[in-house]
Amino acid sequence: MQRAADVFRAGSKVIGVVPTMGYLHEGHLSLIRLAKQRSDVVITTIFVNPTQFAPHEDFSKYPRDLDRDTRLAETAGNDILFVPSVDEIYAAPYQTFVEVKDLTSVLEGKARPTHFRGVTTIVAKVFNITKPRVAVFGQKDAQQAAVIRKMTKDMNFDVEVVIGPIVREPDGLAMSSRNVYLSPDERKQSVVLSASLRRAEEIIASGERTSSMITGEMLRMIAAQPSAMVDYVSIAQDLTLEEVSELRSGMTVLVSLAVRFGPTRLIDNTLVEVR
Amino acid sequence: MQRAADVFRAGSKVIGVVPTMGYLHEGHLSLIRLAKQRSDVVITTIFVNPTQFAPHEDFSKYPRDLDRDTRLAETAGNDILFVPSVDEIYAAPYQTFVEVKDLTSVLEGKARPTHFRGVTTIVAKVFNITKPRVAVFGQKDAQQAAVIRKMTKDMNFDVEVVIGPIVREPDGLAMSSRNVYLSPDERKQSVVLSASLRRAEEIIASGERTSSMITGEMLRMIAAQPSAMVDYVSIAQDLTLEEVSELRSGMTVLVSLAVRFGPTRLIDNTLVEVR
Repeated sequence: MQRAADVFRAGSKVIGVVPTMGYLHEGHLSLIRLAKQRSDVVITTIFVNPTQFAPHEDFSKYPRDLDRDTRLAETAGNDILFVPSVDEIYAAPYQTFVEVKDLTSVLEGKARPTHFRGVTTIVAKVFNITKPRVAVFGQKDAQQAAVIRKMTKDMNFDVEVVIGPIVREPDGLAMSSRNVYLSPDERKQSVVLSASLRRAEEIIASGERTSSMITGEMLRMIAAQPSAMVDYVSIAQDLTLEEVSELRSGMTVLVSLAVRFGPTRLIDNTLVEVR
Repeated sequence: MQRAADVFRAGSKVIGVVPTMGYLHEGHLSLIRLAKQRSDVVITTIFVNPTQFAPHEDFSKYPRDLDRDTRLAETAGNDILFVPSVDEIYAAPYQTFVEVKDLTSVLEGKARPTHFRGVTTIVAKVFNITKPRVAVFGQKDAQQAAVIRKMTKDMNFDVEVVIGPIVREPDGLAMSSRNVYLSPDERKQSVVLSASLRRAEEIIASGERTSSMITGEMLRMIAAQPSAMVDYVSIAQDLTLEEVSELRSGMTVLVSLAVRFGPTRLIDNTLVEVR
């Protein structure tokens, strides 16, 4: 892959990379299209990265379908599919990790303490292997986007990080490879994630400035769904991810949440400019 | 620096980098010459890296002389001197670190727990900034060489790490920017580091296979110097840095030591093939 990247670079081709864990859906495909607009050669990586899963999480049962992924990526304009093995990426004895402090101690990082260390390590490795000028990630994983931006800047990677918007099902559920885990009943209830975010946007637009009032309303909506268990509902500054208790005009806040339906954990978010 | 590196790369020039903390001596110059043999453009970096010093260590008084360094680097064939500021390299709020586990928990890493995290972080950043094909480091910092090799491999940096041999004063003292800290009397006593390593080589050549016998003899030599305080004397496997209690034929071992003279801490080492 590095030799192929060298050949593209020697030919002055701009490489765009879309790191994914596969089981591609329309969200991923929108990122591939975005990468295509900004580069000459799009490399989509498919790698279910063990270091970003905790031992009790769903690494082994994470959905995989390489044949389908290959077809879908191609329809979106992907040029190269890079599908390394775990043994290649973490050749034993593997000992090196990239870690972003502070930003990773809240929200997802609090619920999943070793998760972002796995994410930043694999992304740094993918940058070194695919040698991109542009790397595209999705806003669905809002904290991941912030952490990768910070890692890229702090480490002086000469890569432009582009964040693509969330793609949703017709009823509002954010697309996710993990949605396949939901039972039909859970699938219906899961609309509450996006519905509560729309409600938060409305409340903020109507002038509410106290975060606890906004999250309180979201929590009530979620509590009305019998299978939903809240991990967190948060209103935070968009860049530092510090919790905000009172919204102020001119602020952009990240309203985000994580909700469990049985063993399935879903996340969603929206960026709101406070007027 | 990144744009300059891009221009060289677009012109198919091989970039060699020599990361240093400045106050150059013949040891550094030998690394610049080695880089020159293996690349078209040599970039020497001079950066006294705060993250590899503990709070009680000598960061602020570490010797600096940029005018002299500039002249010396040029005489050795250096093409570009890269001298960033601390504020550029660690723009606040800086949050990202690269860490190699295991290899960094022994020897220097045991004595200086945050040292190698600082080293691997700055080296990864320098790789991203200067975009080298070749990077040259000195064997004087033997564990650093091992840790950087491991980091480069684990992180998939497309960089060949080259280790240059130790350069010594006529009486055997390994060249180091920190040698200027020594009083005339300490300077005389400091010969015991290299002398004890030569003695270890002789004892091993004569057939001694028990590490404690070899280190015991070294410790006796050092104890005879009134100002010398031993931090460690070690015989370890050359790649894993695991301590070896009995030498076996065919092994290569790293015999290394750290000795304090007042506030000045000196290190030295030798690689010995056991016959």
